[in-house]
Formats: sequence, structure tokens, C-alpha cells
Amino acid sequence: MNILIVFAHPEPRSLNGALKNAAVSFLEAAGHKVIVSDLYQQKWKAQADGSDFLQYTEDQRLIVAQAAKEAYQRGLQSPDITAEQEKVLWADLIIFQFPLWWFSMPAIMKGWVDRVFTNGFGYGIGQRYGGGKLAGKKGMLLITTGGDANTFSERGIHGNIHDLLFPIHHGIMWFTGMAALPPFLVHSANHLSESAINKAIEDLKERLSTLETTATIPYYSVPNGDYDEQNLLKPHLHLPQTKLEMHVQ
Amino acid sequence: MNILIVFAHPEPRSLNGALKNAAVSFLEAAGHKVIVSDLYQQKWKAQADGSDFLQYTEDQRLIVAQAAKEAYQRGLQSPDITAEQEKVLWADLIIFQFPLWWFSMPAIMKGWVDRVFTNGFGYGIGQRYGGGKLAGKKGMLLITTGGDANTFSERGIHGNIHDLLFPIHHGIMWFTGMAALPPFLVHSANHLSESAINKAIEDLKERLSTLETTATIPYYSVPNGDYDEQNLLKPHLHLPQTKLEMHVQ
Repeated sequence: MNILIVFAHPEPRSLNGALKNAAVSFLEAAGHKVIVSDLYQQKWKAQADGSDFLQYTEDQRLIVAQAAKEAYQRGLQSPDITAEQEKVLWADLIIFQFPLWWFSMPAIMKGWVDRVFTNGFGYGIGQRYGGGKLAGKKGMLLITTGGDANTFSERGIHGNIHDLLFPIHHGIMWFTGMAALPPFLVHSANHLSESAINKAIEDLKERLSTLETTATIPYYSVPNGDYDEQNLLKPHLHLPQTKLEMHVQ
Repeated sequence: MNILIVFAHPEPRSLNGALKNAAVSFLEAAGHKVIVSDLYQQKWKAQADGSDFLQYTEDQRLIVAQAAKEAYQRGLQSPDITAEQEKVLWADLIIFQFPLWWFSMPAIMKGWVDRVFTNGFGYGIGQRYGGGKLAGKKGMLLITTGGDANTFSERGIHGNIHDLLFPIHHGIMWFTGMAALPPFLVHSANHLSESAINKAIEDLKERLSTLETTATIPYYSVPNGDYDEQNLLKPHLHLPQTKLEMHVQ
């Protein structure tokens, strides 16, 4: 597989850095091709604004989704955006790796999503939720968290991790057509002993050895006709009792 | 009340700009004091990194939460962070206003959260979920979305809006102690007629006229002793059948 790792941690000597390096080595040894977008090292511009669209001038009212679509179609995107889009098109799998900050992505990675998965490139009219422009690709989160596994369980203080990640798995990956592999989580990231870090790396390698066979999260789908013309789940389809059921088989 | 509006939209002539201006005028006329942090206009730096902490040098391994706490305690934060923290301390209510991008905040606002609500300022050991450093304050989302209300309903294609906003309401606001008012949402933001925009502004004013009396979202609470020593919801407390029940009364 061609694998793009989008990496968002400011410190190469971090646990995240160690996990990333281990992942790259393991995947390459297994015969995959790997590209890393190291967002901090690339000094990735996080905020989407008019300077992303070379046709845009300040006297115009900026409508981001429209301007982004026009820039994409006319080849007038900021070159850093185009470079990332080319990596996305090349990839069969995108791994989003980051420390969970405020139960979501660090800003620099959110800005990668905001600026790269643009209207026309990531999705289009009617092209979303399994039918997005990136359909056929897979996505996977590789996340470190500060809490232990208990705190992210169904009765945990932070709420269920699968609920917390729903906006990313469903709203970012699946929206663009990418099928989401179950996330790989390393909890208590600030308090791991050396042996616990080694175990996390071994567990990660095991997960990475089954990328092609692990089932993706089974969301409802636009191409399957699961939604009606009002964008509501069709009446014969079962709404899960809890979101958890829908998230993970 | 003292009200801080944190505003994240790159275009002053946008619907968001009109809503923000209407909110400021209405709130001031009602006797409140209002400060706006216009993140794009301030050229807010979105990514958290070592340059946020003046004691940090590149030969050190950067551990963000530790470095942030030390910088806060020693008065060595980047001045832009301190300036925003002073506004937060001044405010009784913080309104987070933004267009919903990828079912979350634009990167520039996520970066405001990442960099301002630091360890020691926003939360501390055991100080979270109603017991955070900002307890007693309220928070409210003012959001525009691209989809219509149907698409964010319980059977809607995007998923229930309250589930999508749970990481923000619970994981950002309530984590720091801020009680979350129900969000004010303007749907179909790119397709509103002038009369629909006027109606949205009138509806917003009505919501803003009841800030002091509207009930906040009733989450479980650390100061109430709702969680045990393992950070699990205590056995006698009812876990909602759906997250929706927990989110909104």
C-alpha cells in the first residue's frame, strides 16, 4: 500500500515521534511505501484564508468553499495545498497521528483538513459519506491521550472515545469517502514506563500488520442509498440505541 | 454581564460578520460589556509550539502541558496568550462564534483553545468538569452550518448536532468549569435569503435576551462527586440511553 502519515506533534523526541518512527520502519520493511507530512516541521499554515486562493483579491467578499473550489479547478491553489493533495491522491491509506488535545486534533492538523480536503477535491455535490472524492481509500487515527482507558470508557469521565471521535471518523474520513479503520490509541501517554512504551510500539506493529484485513467502521452510506431525499436515514434502517453501536462492530 | 466573543471567520462581510455585529450592538444596548477577539483580524497564531513558552529552548524536549504550566506560573507565556487569558478572566460568558468546518471549529479557533486554556490556567489536577479553573463562567456556541436542520437531526445524514458538539460542550467548556448554554445555530448558511438572514438575527437577539435565565446543559460533575476514584460514573447514576439525553434537557 501507499501510506501517508500526517503527523502533528511539535517535538520529534516525543512518544509520538517514537511511535511515528517505529511505524515508518515497520511499514517500509513490510513492503509498503510511506510518506510523512510532518506538519510542525513543514511549518504548515493552519488557518484557511483568502491567501490560499491565488485568484482571490481583498476587495471581494470571501466565500471559502466557493473560492476553494474555483482555485482547485483553475489550478490557483496555494502550492502547499496542492502538494498535500497530491500525496492524498497517491495514498491508499492516510494515518492521522496526533496527541488528543481537547478531545480533538491539534489546531495545526485541523488546519490541514480545513485547507486540503476542499470543495471539489475532497467532496462535491452529492459526493459524500462513502461517495466522496476519496472513496476507496482508508483512514486511521493514531492517537495518544493523557487519560487512562477507563476515563474514555462508556461510563468514563471524558465520555466514550468512539463518541468523541465520531466527528472525525464520520465527519472527516467517511464524508470524503475514506473508510475508517478502528483507531489505535495509546492512553496515559505522559506516564508510560519504558517497558509500557515498548509494549505500545509492539501493539502498534501488530495493528499495522493487519491493515488490509481489519474491518473498517460500518457507517451508513450515500452510494448505498441509505438516506432519503431529505438526507434522513430511511425508515426501514435501524437507528442505533447508542452511537457506539454504529461506530464499531 | 461581561461577555467575550471569540470570533473566527476570515470575512467581515460574511453572515457570521453580520451576526457578530448584531450581537455586539444588542448586548451593549442591553447593558452588557462586550469584548470581541477577532482571531483572523488579530492574526492569531493557531499552532501551539515551543515559542509559546519563553523559558523553553530548543535543546530541551518539549512537553507541552508541562511547559505551558511552567510558563503560566512564572509569567513567561507569549504575550498574545496572556492577553486572551485576561479577557477570559474578565468574562462572565464566552461566546465562541464560527462556521462549522468539518463538524468542528476552524483551525484558528482550535488554536485559541489549545494555546489559551492551558494547564494551570484552564484546569489543574482534579480541577475539571465543573471544577475547572473557569468554574462559574458560562460558554455558548454561535455556529453557522452548511446543512439544513434535518441533516443534523437524530436521523440526519451528519448525525445529531448535539452529539457532534459534545467534544466542545463537554470536553472544552465543561472541562474548564464553564457551564454550556444551548448552542445557537444558523443552518443552511450559504443559501439564506435576506429575510431569512433578518429572521436569524431576530432569533439571535431573542436568545441573547435570556442569557441569564436559560438553563445550561446538565452534565455530570466532579465537584458533585458524580465520578468514583477510577473516574467512572458512580454505579447509582443513570447512564443516558443516548448521548442526546445527557446533552440537552
